[in-house]
Amino acid sequence: YAERLVPRSYIDLARQARRSYEQQIRLIVEHRKLPEQSLDENIIEQWLDEIAQMDSNNFQGNIGVGEREGRIYSSLVARRHALLSHGIGRSGDINAVQPKAAGSSLLNKLTNELVLDAIHILGLRTVTHALVIPMATGMTMTLCFLVLKKQRPNSRYVLWSRIDQKSCFKSILTANLEPIVIEQTETDCYLQTNVSEFEKQIQQLNPEEICCIVSTTSCFAPRAIDNIQRLSQLCLTHSIPHVVNNAYGLQSTKIVHEIEQSKRSNGRIDYIVQSTDKNFLVPVGGSIVLTYDSQSFDRLSHAYPGRASITPTMDMFITLLSMGKNGLLELVQKRKVLFTLFFDKLSQWALENNESILSSKQFSPISIAISLKHLPNERLTELGSKLFTRRISGARVVKLGTKQKIESYEFTNYGAHSSSVQYSYLTVAAAIGIEESDIDIFMKKFNDVYQKLRRNETLDD
Amino acid sequence: YAERLVPRSYIDLARQARRSYEQQIRLIVEHRKLPEQSLDENIIEQWLDEIAQMDSNNFQGNIGVGEREGRIYSSLVARRHALLSHGIGRSGDINAVQPKAAGSSLLNKLTNELVLDAIHILGLRTVTHALVIPMATGMTMTLCFLVLKKQRPNSRYVLWSRIDQKSCFKSILTANLEPIVIEQTETDCYLQTNVSEFEKQIQQLNPEEICCIVSTTSCFAPRAIDNIQRLSQLCLTHSIPHVVNNAYGLQSTKIVHEIEQSKRSNGRIDYIVQSTDKNFLVPVGGSIVLTYDSQSFDRLSHAYPGRASITPTMDMFITLLSMGKNGLLELVQKRKVLFTLFFDKLSQWALENNESILSSKQFSPISIAISLKHLPNERLTELGSKLFTRRISGARVVKLGTKQKIESYEFTNYGAHSSSVQYSYLTVAAAIGIEESDIDIFMKKFNDVYQKLRRNETLDD
Amino acid sequence: YAERLVPRSYIDLARQARRSYEQQIRLIVEHRKLPEQSLDENIIEQWLDEIAQMDSNNFQGNIGVGEREGRIYSSLVARRHALLSHGIGRSGDINAVQPKAAGSSLLNKLTNELVLDAIHILGLRTVTHALVIPMATGMTMTLCFLVLKKQRPNSRYVLWSRIDQKSCFKSILTANLEPIVIEQTETDCYLQTNVSEFEKQIQQLNPEEICCIVSTTSCFAPRAIDNIQRLSQLCLTHSIPHVVNNAYGLQSTKIVHEIEQSKRSNGRIDYIVQSTDKNFLVPVGGSIVLTYDSQSFDRLSHAYPGRASITPTMDMFITLLSMGKNGLLELVQKRKVLFTLFFDKLSQWALENNESILSSKQFSPISIAISLKHLPNERLTELGSKLFTRRISGARVVKLGTKQKIESYEFTNYGAHSSSVQYSYLTVAAAIGIEESDIDIFMKKFNDVYQKLRRNETLDD
Amino acid sequence: YAERLVPRSYIDLARQARRSYEQQIRLIVEHRKLPEQSLDENIIEQWLDEIAQMDSNNFQGNIGVGEREGRIYSSLVARRHALLSHGIGRSGDINAVQPKAAGSSLLNKLTNELVLDAIHILGLRTVTHALVIPMATGMTMTLCFLVLKKQRPNSRYVLWSRIDQKSCFKSILTANLEPIVIEQTETDCYLQTNVSEFEKQIQQLNPEEICCIVSTTSCFAPRAIDNIQRLSQLCLTHSIPHVVNNAYGLQSTKIVHEIEQSKRSNGRIDYIVQSTDKNFLVPVGGSIVLTYDSQSFDRLSHAYPGRASITPTMDMFITLLSMGKNGLLELVQKRKVLFTLFFDKLSQWALENNESILSSKQFSPISIAISLKHLPNERLTELGSKLFTRRISGARVVKLGTKQKIESYEFTNYGAHSSSVQYSYLTVAAAIGIEESDIDIFMKKFNDVYQKLRRNETLDD
Repeated sequence: YAERLVPRSYIDLARQARRSYEQQIRLIVEHRKLPEQSLDENIIEQWLDEIAQMDSNNFQGNIGVGEREGRIYSSLVARRHALLSHGIGRSGDINAVQPKAAGSSLLNKLTNELVLDAIHILGLRTVTHALVIPMATGMTMTLCFLVLKKQRPNSRYVLWSRIDQKSCFKSILTANLEPIVIEQTETDCYLQTNVSEFEKQIQQLNPEEICCIVSTTSCFAPRAIDNIQRLSQLCLTHSIPHVVNNAYGLQSTKIVHEIEQSKRSNGRIDYIVQSTDKNFLVPVGGSIVLTYDSQSFDRLSHAYPGRASITPTMDMFITLLSMGKNGLLELVQKRKVLFTLFFDKLSQWALENNESILSSKQFSPISIAISLKHLPNERLTELGSKLFTRRISGARVVKLGTKQKIESYEFTNYGAHSSSVQYSYLTVAAAIGIEESDIDIFMKKFNDVYQKLRRNETLDD
Repeated sequence: YAERLVPRSYIDLARQARRSYEQQIRLIVEHRKLPEQSLDENIIEQWLDEIAQMDSNNFQGNIGVGEREGRIYSSLVARRHALLSHGIGRSGDINAVQPKAAGSSLLNKLTNELVLDAIHILGLRTVTHALVIPMATGMTMTLCFLVLKKQRPNSRYVLWSRIDQKSCFKSILTANLEPIVIEQTETDCYLQTNVSEFEKQIQQLNPEEICCIVSTTSCFAPRAIDNIQRLSQLCLTHSIPHVVNNAYGLQSTKIVHEIEQSKRSNGRIDYIVQSTDKNFLVPVGGSIVLTYDSQSFDRLSHAYPGRASITPTMDMFITLLSMGKNGLLELVQKRKVLFTLFFDKLSQWALENNESILSSKQFSPISIAISLKHLPNERLTELGSKLFTRRISGARVVKLGTKQKIESYEFTNYGAHSSSVQYSYLTVAAAIGIEESDIDIFMKKFNDVYQKLRRNETLDD
Repeated sequence: YAERLVPRSYIDLARQARRSYEQQIRLIVEHRKLPEQSLDENIIEQWLDEIAQMDSNNFQGNIGVGEREGRIYSSLVARRHALLSHGIGRSGDINAVQPKAAGSSLLNKLTNELVLDAIHILGLRTVTHALVIPMATGMTMTLCFLVLKKQRPNSRYVLWSRIDQKSCFKSILTANLEPIVIEQTETDCYLQTNVSEFEKQIQQLNPEEICCIVSTTSCFAPRAIDNIQRLSQLCLTHSIPHVVNNAYGLQSTKIVHEIEQSKRSNGRIDYIVQSTDKNFLVPVGGSIVLTYDSQSFDRLSHAYPGRASITPTMDMFITLLSMGKNGLLELVQKRKVLFTLFFDKLSQWALENNESILSSKQFSPISIAISLKHLPNERLTELGSKLFTRRISGARVVKLGTKQKIESYEFTNYGAHSSSVQYSYLTVAAAIGIEESDIDIFMKKFNDVYQKLRRNETLDD
Repeated sequence: YAERLVPRSYIDLARQARRSYEQQIRLIVEHRKLPEQSLDENIIEQWLDEIAQMDSNNFQGNIGVGEREGRIYSSLVARRHALLSHGIGRSGDINAVQPKAAGSSLLNKLTNELVLDAIHILGLRTVTHALVIPMATGMTMTLCFLVLKKQRPNSRYVLWSRIDQKSCFKSILTANLEPIVIEQTETDCYLQTNVSEFEKQIQQLNPEEICCIVSTTSCFAPRAIDNIQRLSQLCLTHSIPHVVNNAYGLQSTKIVHEIEQSKRSNGRIDYIVQSTDKNFLVPVGGSIVLTYDSQSFDRLSHAYPGRASITPTMDMFITLLSMGKNGLLELVQKRKVLFTLFFDKLSQWALENNESILSSKQFSPISIAISLKHLPNERLTELGSKLFTRRISGARVVKLGTKQKIESYEFTNYGAHSSSVQYSYLTVAAAIGIEESDIDIFMKKFNDVYQKLRRNETLDD
C-alpha cells in the first residue's frame, strides 16, 4: 500500500526480509522449541508488542465495565510490562487461558513449552511438563508441600536432608508440616546424604505419616549433591512423594545427570523445583516446577488460587529467545570449564598455603570450600566483610560453632550443613555467567586479604 | 567541574534547579509520604537508576563468586527491571534487608511506607503496617491462612461468607483448611451477610477449631459488602482471627469507611488483603496486606520463605509517585461520581425497559446488577459474548441455575453468590479508571444488543 | 498459528482488533493525511519498528560489503533511532528513494506528505509541496539563497526588511550575498515594513542584481509581521524571488492568513521557511520549506548534496500522528486564546504602572512588548537576569542604544529592530504550548522584580 | 538520608561504588579524553539524564515566555532525545553556549573535545580542532567552500580530482562555484592523482581565482587515495586553500598516515571533512570537520547561521564512550586485518577464474575492484541486483561506458572515476564493522551468482 511512495521492488525485497523473520517466529510457535540461534532483541520486542495487542485492554476502542480491566496508570509502568497487564491464570488454574487476555495466555503457554524444551536441551529429557511460577523457589516449595499434603491428608512429616539455607527449611514450616532433619555424614572431606538414616526414619514413622522427602542438589560446599538415586528408590519402595530442591542445579551437567539417572532407573520424583534467576540469569522472582506426569502437573496448577504475575514468564521468554539453543549450551559449557579452572587455582593456592579444599570436585560441581586453618579465629568474619568492601560478592566465611534457631529447631555449626565439621572455611562458587577474569581478580584479592589477616595486620576499608 | 566548557553562572543555575528535585526526593524519603503533586516520569526513572546503582551487581568492577549474583543475560530484561535484579527479602523474612542489594532493600522498605501513606490518605487511618507482597490476592490469602493456622494448630475451619469467586474459595482449600460456607440472605433486592448464621456456627463448632473468619468487601452485585462491623465484633467476642478480603475495596470510600468504623469500634481484624492492580492501576501480580499491629505483620513477613520479585513493589513505587496525593484522591473521587452516573443511567434504562436494578446503591458501591427478565433464556449467554465481540469487556451475565463444583463443595446458582436468586441478570462495574465516555458507549451498545435479543433477532459478530 | 495454545475464538477477536489498527494505518498511507484523532504512542512505535525492518541493515542475514552499511555500534544509539540508520536522500536529491533503505525512504516521503496536510489544516491551503529539511531555519535559508543565486547568476543583493535576529542576517552572508537593510518605519507604537523604501531600492538597483527579497513574519514585538501582501506584489511586478522567513509563524492564524492572502492575490512567494521545533514542539534540528510549484521544490531538493539526517523527519512523523488533526487545531486555538489573555493582563498591568504596550495586538500576534520607562537605566539588564534565576525563561530586555556589528554591517538599537525606538522595553511571547498558569506565574514574578527594581531595592539571586 | 530504612554500612558501600563512577566521569570531563575502557550503557544514559536536567526546559517549575522554550509534545520524541530539546549553537556560532541550555552546550563542547581525542588516537595527532556538524559530508563540504569563498571573494574555481560520487561534485555546484575536473591517470591497474595536471591548471588560471583544491582519500577502487602530500605542497606553494574529503578515511591507518605526513611536511590543509556514520558506526546525519588552527575553525563555526540539531553530537558522545579508547582501536585494527583477508580471498578467486584485481592493496586500503571480463555484457547489471536480492548490500557493478550529466558537466565511464577504464568490474569494501563471516558468505554467494551468469544460466530471485 506504500507503493506510490516507494518503488514496488524495494518494498518487495523488504517484505521478503520481513517474511523470513515471521517464518522464524512461526517455527518457534509451531514446534514450541527454542531457535538454534539467538533472536535479535528488537525482534523479540516487536513480537511482544504484537502479543500485547491481543489483550483486550490494548484493543482500540475497548470499553471496560468490569472490576479489573488491565488499565495502567503510569506509562512508565506500562512500557516496562510491554503493555501486558492481565497477568497469568484464572481463578481456577494458574495455567488457564484468560478470555480477556489472549496474548498474555499465549505468552504463558508458549513460554512453558519453551522452558520445557530448554530443560530437555539441558539434559532432563524424561521430564514431561514445565511450569514457570511467579514465586521464587522457597514459596514454590511450600506450594508443592501443600499440594502433596492435600493428597495425603493424614501425613505430618517431611524428611529433609539437612542443608543450611533458611528458606528451604522455612518452606516446610510455612506449609505447617514438621521437618525431620537428617544430618549429613562426612566422608573424605565432603558431606554425603545419610541414606541409612532416611531408611531408619521411614521404618520408625508410619510411611503414611510422611508427606514427602526433600532432597537438595545444588548447595554450598562441602555439602554434596544429595544421593538422588538412592532417595528416589526409597520413595518408590515406600510410596512416599519426593520433592527435589534443584535451586540452581540446572546449570550443572553433573546434577542434571544425577536426576536424569534417578528417573531412568524408575526412581520416584514428584516435583523438581528450581530458580529462574539462578539458572537463567533473570531477576529474582520466579521458579520452574518440573513433573514427569500430567496429574502432578495439573494438581499443582489447579492448586494455585487466582491470577499471578506474568513478569517471570516474560523474562524467561525474552531470555530464552535471546540465548537460543546454542547460547544456552555455551553458557553451561563455559561454566563447567571455569569451575574446573577455579577448583584448580584454589587447589594450587591451598597447597602453597597449607590449607585444603574441603569439597569434592565431582559431587560439589558448583561450589568450592577452602579451609581457613591459619587465620586467627577472631578475625574470620573480617575476611568476608573485607572481601565485600573490595567488591567481591558471594564469598562466604563459615565459622565453626555457629548456632541457629529456626522456630523450635536448633542447628549446630549452622552454615556448614553439619554438626560435625572440623574447620572454619570459605566457600565460593563458579555459577553460570561467571567470567575467567572474575576468578583471576578474586584469587588476587582473596590472597591479599588472607595474607594480611594471617599476619594479623590491620586492613583498611 | 564542567566550568571550563560552560560558564559557571549557567551551571550554577542548573545546579540550583537540580537541587530542587533532590529536595523533593529527600522529603519523600524523610517523611515517607507521597508528594502532594505528581512527580515527572523522568525524575522517577532517574531515581530508580540511582537506587539500582546501590545494588552490588551494578557496582563497577564487582566480582561475583556466589551462586546468585544478580547477573542478567538479556539487556532487554535488564532495562525493564531498571537493572534491579536481587528481588526483595532474605531467607528468613520478605521484608528483610539484603546486604548485596541496598538499593532493592531501600526501594522495598520505602515503597511499603509510601503504600501505608496512600492507605491513610484513602481513609484507613488506623492501619499501622502495609506490606506489598509479590503474589496476587488469592495466593496471599492462602499465606495469611497458613500463618493463622500456625498460631492455632488445633483449628481446622474457615467461616466464609459466600462469594462466588473461585480464587477466594480456593485460597482456603490450598491452605488445607475446611471452609464452612455461610450463605447470604436476601433483603430488598440485595444480598446481605448472614450474621446470625455465623453466630450459630461459632456456637456449634468449638471456636478453637475455627482458624479464622473471612469476610469480603468488594464483589459483584447483587452481593453487598459483608457486614464487617458485626463480623469483627463477633471475632473480638470469640477471639477468632478475622481476614478481610478487600480485593478492590480501597477504591470505594464506602468500603473504606466500613472497615475504618469496624476498627474504631474495636472490632477484630487481623489481615486486610487487597489487590495492587485493581486498586492502583498496575499490572496483575501483587497484593497489599494491612495489619493493625506489628506482631501480625512480623508473623506474615517472617512466614514467607525466601526471596521474592520486586516487580509489584516497583510498579507501586512508580505509580504512587506518578499520582501524588492529589492524583490519587482525584481518581477515587472521579470513580465515585461516575458510579453514581452509571447507576442512574442504568436505573433510567431499567425503568424504560421494565427491568430492574438488583443491587443496592449504598451497599454495593462499585458493581451494579440489572435484571434480564425479558430476554429469551436460551440467548442469555449470547448477550455476554456479543458485548465482548463489540469490545465491551467486563460485563457478566449470570444465568440462574448454574451449578459449580469446587473439589468436594457444590454451589447452586454459581455466580450469583446465593442459592435463592430469582432472575438472571447482568453485572457491570464502575471501577477506578473508568471514563464517562466508557459508560456512554456501553449504554448504547448494551441497549442495542439487548433490544435485538429481546426481539429474538439474529446478531452478527 | 497459535491456536493450539489458545482457543481460536480469542485469537480471532484479537486479530479483529489488530485489523482495526492496521486499517487506520492503511488510511493514513493511502490518503497521506493526518488521522482525525491522536494515535497511541505504542502504535506509532510499532509502526516505526515495521518501517525500520524495511531497511536492508535490519534484514535478517544481511551481508554488507559496501562502505556505508548502516551499522550502529551502540545499542543505545540504535534504539533511539528506532534502528533507522541510513538517513534520507541520495547523492543527487534529498528527497530521493534509497534502494538500501526502503523504510527510511517511505518514512521520509510519507512525512513530507503529512506535513503538507498539516500545513493545509493550518490554513496555507494553496501550498503544493512541503519538505522537511534536517537543518534549522538559518542554514535552510542559506540553502534557499544558494538555489536562487544559481538561477540568477548575475545577482548580488538580498533586500531584507530589518529584523534583529542574527541567524537570519547571517544566512544571507553565509551564502556570500550582500544584504541591503531596509529599516522599519514606526507607526502607532509598532514597527512596520517600509514598503516604499523597498520600491526605492528596486528602482535604484538593477532588479536582476537582486537575488531575492526576504520578508519575516514571526518576530519579537514591537516589530510587526512584514507586509507580505505588498512585498509579494512587488516581487511579482519586478520578477524578483521572494523568500518568507516564517520561523514560528505557522502557530498564528493571523500570520497564516496574511501569507495565504498574498498568494491568493497572486503575489510572488518562492520559498516559505519555518522551524519544526518552534511550530510543532519537537527538539531543534529541522525546518520545513514550502513551495507553490514543483519546479522550485525540485530545485531545492536537487541542490542538497548527499544524504541527511532522518531525525527531524521522524520527530515530525511521531508528533503529527500523536497530535492528530484535532490535537493540532486545539493547540493553535489554545495559543490564540492565551495570547489575548496575556495581552490583556499586560495591558492592565501597564495601566496600573504607568507603562505602555509597545506592540500591536493585531500585527504582532505572538510577541508583546512592554515599556520599562520607570526602571533605573543601569538596572535594566538586571531585570532579565533576575527573571531567569527565578526560572522565567524567554523574557528579553531590550535596552536602548545597543550597538551590534555583524561582519561589516553595523546596527543601532540592536534587538529593537529599529534605529529609532524611544524606550527600553521587555518582550514576552505566548508561543504554542504555553499554559495559562505560565502567564499567571510570570505576571506575579515579573511584577515582583519590577517593583523592587523601580524602588531601587537590592535583589538576591 | 535513607539510613533509617537500610543500614548505614550498606549505603556507605553503595555510595563508594557510585563514587567510582562519578570519578570516572569527572576524569573524562577534566581531561576531555576518552576513557580507556568502554562505559556501561546505563551509566551513559544516566549521565545524559543529568546533562538534560541542566537545560532550562527541564528545570522544575520553569516558566517559558519566549518563542522557543524547548517544549516537546510527544513523550516518545522527548525520550528519544533524552529530553534535550534546545539543539546546539546560537545565532552567531554553532559552537556557542546557550544560556537556556547549559546541558546541551556542555554536551556539545565536551563531545567536540572527545572527538578530537578520538582523532588523535586514530593518528591525526597534529589536528588542533574538531567540530561535529549536524549535516552529512556533502552539505558540510558546501559550507566549507562558502567559508573559503568569503575569504577569497574574487575566486570562482574549485580544482577537483575526479571521484565519481555525486554528492561531492554537487557540494561544489551548490556553493555556486565552478569545478575544474582533473581526471585520474591510470598506472599499474589503479588510478592515481594527476598532480601535473593540477600544476598545469594552477598555472593557467590565476591562483587567486581558485577558491580551493579538493582532494579525496576514501573512495571506491580502482581509484586510489589522492596524493595528499603532493597536493598539499602545491597548495602551500601557491597559497591555495585545501579541503580534504576524507569521508570514510578515518578508519584506515594508511589514509590517516598520508594526511598526517602531509601536515608534518608542512603541506597546506585547511579543512578535513569526514562522515560520522561511516567512521564511527552511527546513523547518517553528521560530519566532523578538522582544522589545524583556531582561525579556520572559528570562521567555520561562525559561518553556520543559527541553531542546529544535537542528535549527531549525542550519537557521537554515546558511541565514543561506549567504545572507549581500546574499543576504537580494536575496531580499526580488526578492519585492517579483514581487509587483507578479503583482498587475499578475492585475489585467489581471481586467479582461479581468470579475472583480475583492479586496485592497489596499498593505495586503495578499503575498497577492492575485481574485473568481470567473462560475464556477458548484457547481464552485468544483473549481477548487482541478484546479489542484492540475496541480501548482499554494497557490492557495485561498474559497467564500462556509462555516461552521466550533472548540471552542465558530462562524465564518461561514470562510476569508474576515469574516462579510460578498460573492463567492467565489481567493487566491494571491507569497511569498519565488517565481520569475517560477512566475507565468507559474500565469497560463496558471489561465486555462485557469477558462475551462473558466466554460464548464461537463468537466475531466480
